[in-house]
Amino acid sequence: MGMVGGGPGSFIGHVHYMAAIMDGQIELVCGSFSSNPKKSKITGSEYYLNPDRVYDTFQEMITEEAKLPLGVRMDFVCIVTPNHLHFEPAKLAMENGFHVVCDKPLALDADEAEVMVRLKEETGLLFALTHTYTGYPMVKEARKLVKDGDLGKIRKVVVEYPQGWLTEPLELTDHVQASWRNDPKRSGKTCCVGDIGTHAFNLAEYVTGLQVNELMADLSTLVPNRVLDDDANMLLHFKGGARGVLYASQISAGEENAVKLRVYGEKGGLEFNQMEPNTLIIKWHDKPMEVRRTGTGFVSDIAAYNTRVPAGHPEGYLEAFANIYRNAATCIQHMLEGTEPPEEALDFPTIYEGFRGMQFVDKAVESSEKQSWVEF
Amino acid sequence: MGMVGGGPGSFIGHVHYMAAIMDGQIELVCGSFSSNPKKSKITGSEYYLNPDRVYDTFQEMITEEAKLPLGVRMDFVCIVTPNHLHFEPAKLAMENGFHVVCDKPLALDADEAEVMVRLKEETGLLFALTHTYTGYPMVKEARKLVKDGDLGKIRKVVVEYPQGWLTEPLELTDHVQASWRNDPKRSGKTCCVGDIGTHAFNLAEYVTGLQVNELMADLSTLVPNRVLDDDANMLLHFKGGARGVLYASQISAGEENAVKLRVYGEKGGLEFNQMEPNTLIIKWHDKPMEVRRTGTGFVSDIAAYNTRVPAGHPEGYLEAFANIYRNAATCIQHMLEGTEPPEEALDFPTIYEGFRGMQFVDKAVESSEKQSWVEF
Amino acid sequence: MGMVGGGPGSFIGHVHYMAAIMDGQIELVCGSFSSNPKKSKITGSEYYLNPDRVYDTFQEMITEEAKLPLGVRMDFVCIVTPNHLHFEPAKLAMENGFHVVCDKPLALDADEAEVMVRLKEETGLLFALTHTYTGYPMVKEARKLVKDGDLGKIRKVVVEYPQGWLTEPLELTDHVQASWRNDPKRSGKTCCVGDIGTHAFNLAEYVTGLQVNELMADLSTLVPNRVLDDDANMLLHFKGGARGVLYASQISAGEENAVKLRVYGEKGGLEFNQMEPNTLIIKWHDKPMEVRRTGTGFVSDIAAYNTRVPAGHPEGYLEAFANIYRNAATCIQHMLEGTEPPEEALDFPTIYEGFRGMQFVDKAVESSEKQSWVEF
Amino acid sequence: MGMVGGGPGSFIGHVHYMAAIMDGQIELVCGSFSSNPKKSKITGSEYYLNPDRVYDTFQEMITEEAKLPLGVRMDFVCIVTPNHLHFEPAKLAMENGFHVVCDKPLALDADEAEVMVRLKEETGLLFALTHTYTGYPMVKEARKLVKDGDLGKIRKVVVEYPQGWLTEPLELTDHVQASWRNDPKRSGKTCCVGDIGTHAFNLAEYVTGLQVNELMADLSTLVPNRVLDDDANMLLHFKGGARGVLYASQISAGEENAVKLRVYGEKGGLEFNQMEPNTLIIKWHDKPMEVRRTGTGFVSDIAAYNTRVPAGHPEGYLEAFANIYRNAATCIQHMLEGTEPPEEALDFPTIYEGFRGMQFVDKAVESSEKQSWVEF
Repeated sequence: MGMVGGGPGSFIGHVHYMAAIMDGQIELVCGSFSSNPKKSKITGSEYYLNPDRVYDTFQEMITEEAKLPLGVRMDFVCIVTPNHLHFEPAKLAMENGFHVVCDKPLALDADEAEVMVRLKEETGLLFALTHTYTGYPMVKEARKLVKDGDLGKIRKVVVEYPQGWLTEPLELTDHVQASWRNDPKRSGKTCCVGDIGTHAFNLAEYVTGLQVNELMADLSTLVPNRVLDDDANMLLHFKGGARGVLYASQISAGEENAVKLRVYGEKGGLEFNQMEPNTLIIKWHDKPMEVRRTGTGFVSDIAAYNTRVPAGHPEGYLEAFANIYRNAATCIQHMLEGTEPPEEALDFPTIYEGFRGMQFVDKAVESSEKQSWVEF
Repeated sequence: MGMVGGGPGSFIGHVHYMAAIMDGQIELVCGSFSSNPKKSKITGSEYYLNPDRVYDTFQEMITEEAKLPLGVRMDFVCIVTPNHLHFEPAKLAMENGFHVVCDKPLALDADEAEVMVRLKEETGLLFALTHTYTGYPMVKEARKLVKDGDLGKIRKVVVEYPQGWLTEPLELTDHVQASWRNDPKRSGKTCCVGDIGTHAFNLAEYVTGLQVNELMADLSTLVPNRVLDDDANMLLHFKGGARGVLYASQISAGEENAVKLRVYGEKGGLEFNQMEPNTLIIKWHDKPMEVRRTGTGFVSDIAAYNTRVPAGHPEGYLEAFANIYRNAATCIQHMLEGTEPPEEALDFPTIYEGFRGMQFVDKAVESSEKQSWVEF
Repeated sequence: MGMVGGGPGSFIGHVHYMAAIMDGQIELVCGSFSSNPKKSKITGSEYYLNPDRVYDTFQEMITEEAKLPLGVRMDFVCIVTPNHLHFEPAKLAMENGFHVVCDKPLALDADEAEVMVRLKEETGLLFALTHTYTGYPMVKEARKLVKDGDLGKIRKVVVEYPQGWLTEPLELTDHVQASWRNDPKRSGKTCCVGDIGTHAFNLAEYVTGLQVNELMADLSTLVPNRVLDDDANMLLHFKGGARGVLYASQISAGEENAVKLRVYGEKGGLEFNQMEPNTLIIKWHDKPMEVRRTGTGFVSDIAAYNTRVPAGHPEGYLEAFANIYRNAATCIQHMLEGTEPPEEALDFPTIYEGFRGMQFVDKAVESSEKQSWVEF
Repeated sequence: MGMVGGGPGSFIGHVHYMAAIMDGQIELVCGSFSSNPKKSKITGSEYYLNPDRVYDTFQEMITEEAKLPLGVRMDFVCIVTPNHLHFEPAKLAMENGFHVVCDKPLALDADEAEVMVRLKEETGLLFALTHTYTGYPMVKEARKLVKDGDLGKIRKVVVEYPQGWLTEPLELTDHVQASWRNDPKRSGKTCCVGDIGTHAFNLAEYVTGLQVNELMADLSTLVPNRVLDDDANMLLHFKGGARGVLYASQISAGEENAVKLRVYGEKGGLEFNQMEPNTLIIKWHDKPMEVRRTGTGFVSDIAAYNTRVPAGHPEGYLEAFANIYRNAATCIQHMLEGTEPPEEALDFPTIYEGFRGMQFVDKAVESSEKQSWVEF
């Protein structure tokens, strides 16, 4: 693969790298890691890359790599830049026939997203989006449970993503992450909703298989003088009648990344906590609570497929991330070989989830501004 | 004390009884346990009461007891009937000079509540309301922490009360609890909001010391053919700018009484789970997470005052309940003696919290019907 | 009941009191609370006792009460004194026809214990011992699970009771609890083993229904200049071949009362933590982990019988303690009436568990001194 | 690196692979994955190896690779075979100048281990042993805490490793892992003690910095007809006076890999659970419990050095494993360059921990056979 972004100061770039290479299936062969060529070179050498394939710009990378023969050139582009720099490289990559793995949210706004979807459909290329939390085996187990009807009809969904890292105005310091996320030009209309609200939203829709069709949002900026939202609370209506609550927050002081999902149906409820991701709690209505665990013999095939080590040896965030890469790479490999990938490998977030996420951002902002319910 | 309600089939009556007598400070001396005198007699004999003081009606109990000399007659009335039967006995009790301990919610609606408040103020009697969850030592510790400014200015509050017991239409069976709660004549405008939403609301306001001044509610009935709401999700605005989420649910299948409060300020957050009530988690922004525990030497005086056994010997729901009784009884005793009670004993929920709870119910219903924010 | 001990400075006396009266079935009618008559009077008045029935000595109490008519006099004696003062009052009580509820350990040594057992058998009186931890509903559930063979043959038992309160030499201060426990004349041969090791031992034998028949103990005194043991680690062999580990410690700094039991059989294991006593974890070998909870509809009759409030309202130490009192009192009431008590009421620790506990203390000391396995 | 073992059916081989390559610092360049050359080829191709460097035997691999120029040839050998096949390849590797990363336990017995230690010292090569659990950041934090004296003098250590996977006689089936572990020729004198007891032992000594100098072991075989031990309970004495308990079990039905360490000193205790490895609980004697978390700003440099992602994104077993590889590889790289590695990189288990583990196995067997304490 070839990487766009991920230069010095980036956190997510190296995460993508570790997740991508962990299984020995993917190799980083080239990169354009920074808009500053010198910085790009530094990162390239840290990854032991051939200096010739550390490019000054993503344009150069994509066009030069496209000239290399298949098998030598990168097989796909991985985009790990801030939000405003997803659209251009993704577009160029697809125009040059490269598959794409892109960080979330998909783009700066729904307009960009729409163009990207169209291009993806025209080219038939693979487009994966790293909504990491759906990569956990126990999230897949949860989805399977709902899909199989074990919980009965779904009635209630509660999804939350509290963080505390923006409790202070870090964006006024030289903190790279905080700065671009609070800059509308680089981040889009929102900070909190786009950055982590979309994760929560994606997780809820992924596990329940339901779509939100109405929402009522309350976006706030709790830290004085901050430009964008740092806290977002929402009421949700799902198609089919289920009710929900979603909240995301970056000023929940002391919280790390406490992503948590609860889904309740007619027959029971489930609970997933990202910070203890190898456990899925199932609270049955008519029998004792059950705890399913990653790696045991008591989980579904799809959970097992996304597991690397035996039960009791915890898997974490990098493994969940790696599942997206592994599944996408498996599909790409099959596309290269002209064969059908195993059905399990198709289970990764795509551009459609990305597009839906951008709509979610728009609708949340609209609802909060109007102070009323909006349709979705 | 004398009890109104709590006859055969009642759950909360016996809870009040155990909580009241646990400390040896309060004795049940009379009761009118049921509208059916025979049933009342049965319960009276189970409590080893003098049959002469097991009355056929609460009117009889109050008027007859009022004729007995002080020291013999009951010192206060405890009301454990369904919601529609709080007003009359409380009114009559106060008119006859008896203090009152009343189950929540205070009344059937805010109009009744207003009359009760006026009467309480005119008579100067004590009126305690059993919002049990504020009786836990660690809830009092949480309140102290906020009050002392340890968390800084409060920015975010999340309070939830999921239950699963109404997952099926129990009210169509002979289930006593479910039946009256889903009957508007006995329960009022709501089931879920009044029964447990008020607990969540009270807990949030008690701990933060803040008042909700705007809310946006989404009340739903998820179980087909049910008359009242069984799920309620709300967005909250607090005076001073804090944001919040409150939800209560009776169809969260598999949940017991998972009352949980999280409060975040500028310096840290706190978390209290009623189902593990001897633990208060404090997540600091600038240092490691801290865990305070009931009964240790590291909690405030007010927490210690409401604790009975050494650390590591869990206290539970009955002890929290008993704290309300013990504190109210201590105040009544001092009133009888004409002395000042210790300040710690004044810390129990009163008719004012009850009045506020009735307003909350009204506002929640109004907001949900209008589908818009309402002021409070 | 009449109480021996429990005067000013006692912790366990008031715990017995609250546990005894909580259900309204037992009344404290007399007491001899201290060897100091003035102190006894103070405690008596705190309990609102008739001053005539606050006695100067336990001898006086027992002999005077014996003269009162049945129904007026106390029905049983409750002994809450330090270990060296169990034997005399218990003996005198039984000699005067009073049932006994006694704190643990039963006596100062096995010789005393043997006399007590003989007297109990000769008189046919009821003798309950407050091994509190077996009073928890989930401990009873655990015992039922093993008894029903759900775990298969038991292979491994791990029981532990770490405390940290004797991390410093408190016995050198005026700390009442620490002082007598570290005084061989009042405490017996051991501090840690007798005080809390016996609880762990009782819990293990109660739940498994198995008897330890060999043990290897390592008793230590970790705090300089301390007289008795403050840490005890043991290897256990059970009749039938199961293996075990037991440890008790009073110098495990920072621990409260972390009693924990794990039992493993051919088909699964169970885990009980006293500090979260409403949860029983069952780890099946061939299916997912299960969590049973106090008060739900999914537990055995014996667990339900020992439960007071619905699921999700935590019960604690006082309720577990109260179960011993309630069950013993129910049996006493039936003895008074000449009827058979319900089978469930027979489930409380008796003098036999107390005798076995004293043997355990002796064997642990013997093994540790010899540094070898001893038979039991 | 070049791998010995890890062919089809191996679990630990692929774990070593993922852990080694995760950071992009190590590349698998050759291997001898099985005694069956065909199987070796299969595994080699799964790892995309050059077929020329997939060798039929480890002898061939080592001697052939030794002929390749530095920079082309493997830099070190990684040995992931059963216990009886550690000695020969490790010896040959060192004799040919290759550094070694070896799975635990070090060898079949202490005699082999001694030869290996001598050879390591003669050659000056690096020898890392994969006692994975010491690779967790929070284990390193725990060690630092003890080393810095924050807990005061250590008094008590409890370390446990319960598993349930050998609850049934899997070794009688074609289960590869169970078969060799229960075969004395391939596993050595013990199954349970060598396989997981050594992990527990290493963890205890690593964190406390103390050495066991006396132990009393009770090894058992609970599953009928099994050849080796499947359960081991021990009492420990540490130099300096601390007391301890160690147990390891493979028949604790329902347990996964519940490695847990508790250490208590004069000032507080700590607790680490491998199944929730991003949390270190510190129970202070004189202040509230504290919880330190991987990736936060509140941990030591050594913990931070061994962390890959921000707080709240759980790291797991593979990352702990990868820390051993990364640290060893960093040292090897510095050795190649003739420079001093950073001090943090020196923190990985070596042949000396391996040698000590083999002694531990011998002493445990000796003590259990003699049924007495043995010196260490």
